[in-house]
Amino acid sequence: MFKISIIGLGYVGLPLAIELSKFFKIVGFDVNKTRVKSLSKGLDINNDILPKKINKSNILFTNKKNDLADSDTYIITVPTPILKNNNPDLFFLKKAFQDIGNFITKKNLVILESTVYPGLTEELANKYFVKQRGLILNKDFYLGYSPERINPGDKIKNIRNIKKIISASNNISLKKMRIIYSKIIKAGLHETKTIKIAESAKVIENAQRDINIAFVNEVFNIFDKLNIDTHQVLKAASTKWNFLPFKPGLVGGHCIGVDPYYLTYLSKMQGYHPDVILAGRNINDNMHKIIIRSFASHAHKKKFILKEMKVLFLGLAFKENCSDIRNTKIYNLHKDLKHKVKKIDIFDPYVNHTEVKKIYKLKLIKSPKIKHYDAIFILLGHKKFMSLGYNKIINFGKKKRVVFDLKNVFNKGLFPI
Amino acid sequence: MFKISIIGLGYVGLPLAIELSKFFKIVGFDVNKTRVKSLSKGLDINNDILPKKINKSNILFTNKKNDLADSDTYIITVPTPILKNNNPDLFFLKKAFQDIGNFITKKNLVILESTVYPGLTEELANKYFVKQRGLILNKDFYLGYSPERINPGDKIKNIRNIKKIISASNNISLKKMRIIYSKIIKAGLHETKTIKIAESAKVIENAQRDINIAFVNEVFNIFDKLNIDTHQVLKAASTKWNFLPFKPGLVGGHCIGVDPYYLTYLSKMQGYHPDVILAGRNINDNMHKIIIRSFASHAHKKKFILKEMKVLFLGLAFKENCSDIRNTKIYNLHKDLKHKVKKIDIFDPYVNHTEVKKIYKLKLIKSPKIKHYDAIFILLGHKKFMSLGYNKIINFGKKKRVVFDLKNVFNKGLFPI
Repeated sequence: MFKISIIGLGYVGLPLAIELSKFFKIVGFDVNKTRVKSLSKGLDINNDILPKKINKSNILFTNKKNDLADSDTYIITVPTPILKNNNPDLFFLKKAFQDIGNFITKKNLVILESTVYPGLTEELANKYFVKQRGLILNKDFYLGYSPERINPGDKIKNIRNIKKIISASNNISLKKMRIIYSKIIKAGLHETKTIKIAESAKVIENAQRDINIAFVNEVFNIFDKLNIDTHQVLKAASTKWNFLPFKPGLVGGHCIGVDPYYLTYLSKMQGYHPDVILAGRNINDNMHKIIIRSFASHAHKKKFILKEMKVLFLGLAFKENCSDIRNTKIYNLHKDLKHKVKKIDIFDPYVNHTEVKKIYKLKLIKSPKIKHYDAIFILLGHKKFMSLGYNKIINFGKKKRVVFDLKNVFNKGLFPI
Repeated sequence: MFKISIIGLGYVGLPLAIELSKFFKIVGFDVNKTRVKSLSKGLDINNDILPKKINKSNILFTNKKNDLADSDTYIITVPTPILKNNNPDLFFLKKAFQDIGNFITKKNLVILESTVYPGLTEELANKYFVKQRGLILNKDFYLGYSPERINPGDKIKNIRNIKKIISASNNISLKKMRIIYSKIIKAGLHETKTIKIAESAKVIENAQRDINIAFVNEVFNIFDKLNIDTHQVLKAASTKWNFLPFKPGLVGGHCIGVDPYYLTYLSKMQGYHPDVILAGRNINDNMHKIIIRSFASHAHKKKFILKEMKVLFLGLAFKENCSDIRNTKIYNLHKDLKHKVKKIDIFDPYVNHTEVKKIYKLKLIKSPKIKHYDAIFILLGHKKFMSLGYNKIINFGKKKRVVFDLKNVFNKGLFPI
């Protein structure tokens, strides 16, 4: 029976720990003291896992490194963000390898689940285990890579029913991984020949989504200038059997907008400038500007004076039905638009107001005023917005108002009415 | 009952004429005398429509303009290629509008099916019917746009079972189009509010395919340099529920590699440089160079001297199971590789040898030699190659040889052995 330490208790680590705890003895480690404290009380601030489940799990939640000593298996699920210059920020990853390096003993298995670029898992193991500790791969320790495929906010696709890739440094470690993951993954495992193939697969998954959204964002940019409603166009194109139903939008969060930079970093190191992926990143990172231009031009046509408009934002999280506000591009939209209009109220019943204040210095409203706004931006298809219904939402606006339904969630086009 | 002239009898016009002839009196017009002659004899050089069907159709095939005089409906299905500078080549389109302009009489309906950029249908009607002939839209003539969605080489997806978009200048013309197309389209019609929306939908359909192939081509370019087999990576990534199974490859033909330039042309006219689409076009147009580099590096690793290698190309057409060689990028691959190796034999049982000689000045082989080649390029997944089987195909090669399976049609990776 394996004794497993999970390093990093975020969106990826916590559900993984919960599932594995049904079969193995689990230590849940996180450097964030507050996180560890609240998890010990059964509270998941992400609203992802219910208190009952956490309390019942019998996981040792800790931020003390020494608690890692007893484990024979380490699974790393720390974030892999980017720096301001869009290069990979390997701080958490290096720290995790270093911490584990202090405790790793003979035949221990170390598995990485975070998104990296191909080669990085072996590179870090080589640096922190082989060079620093003098251990030999496949003799003194085993290495594995199994990319997480968590879909935050998705209650249907969960860790059990999403197929999982596993890869390892040799057959012994692969066999160990098979035993561990097959206990919890009901959708099956896909084994790749090398760790590099598994790393590559993960890093292109979100990059593909990113480029597809970038394509429709570019299309939006072209058609909007011609007063052609992109949503009507996408609806028509989607009647072709192989058209892919992506929608224009802001690409935030810590996966789709971030992972591609790991790939482009590696690519540039190889001497190849990845024009397609970077062009996609560029338009997605600037989509808030395209939205503002589109809105301003429409408001102008409707004889509004931008500077006098009271605006309501519906949504702040980085995606629908999700409380996560990290790297939400609605913040950028707000930042660039607020000086151009009179006032912007932001309403999002999913996010934590204290956290918003702490991170963005923004004060959210508790509920929108009735018949008050000159413009309503429907930015996310949160279920709570959908169940409010279109009529209640436009009732927040004055009689004469602009409604901007970015993702066409009410299926009435970009500027309904 | 409508009397319909179809202008342009290629991949789009011929099957459309055949289907419509079951319900209406059809004149099939093409400027190409040879094409008209062979069709009159029941022969379709594209091997698309069987002689029996053509002979039975009772279509008047003609290249005489006067035969257009009697019709009340004109459907334009001429090619819309690009010029050397990648700008739209509107020669055939303008000619078709001009020809029709001579015969159009009161209440006639003109429908365009060719791919254009949004606005062009109305622009051409305005120029050739309104300005040159003094006719008034929706009074003297009606206008419609219904983009073709023919998939050359696809025997399952045919004109009857592919949903079709229709759009028109007013309700009367839309009603006429509904009557005409609902006779032959069993998959249903999708009506858009404006002609521009239908034009936009069509022009992004192939552009989306193009960018997706460009993405995997770029990924191929990155991973190949690291000796990571892209096909293994794609296979692993495809185990995620929403990963799109595109494959690296050469993008030729007269749709996917051409249509995006209509969109980028329009975009540049609007003052926006479409970086994403153009980056995609650029890598796809240069994919043959990436293939050569990948091959050369692999051959080098296997201790081959490039200059001494006898190479076999399997495939020349622009796509699988298709005889069409127009704008096939395998020609570019051949052109750039032939000076680097000893000899290249090309084998493609689908294409017309005389046409290949005429267009490309290339002489194809009738069958590959046994145990003769140092390298075998499997460039297309033609059914005839698949049914030969992998063992027969590698038997064309010497004992020591390189096999390059570009699209992984035999599911053994890029460089199987």
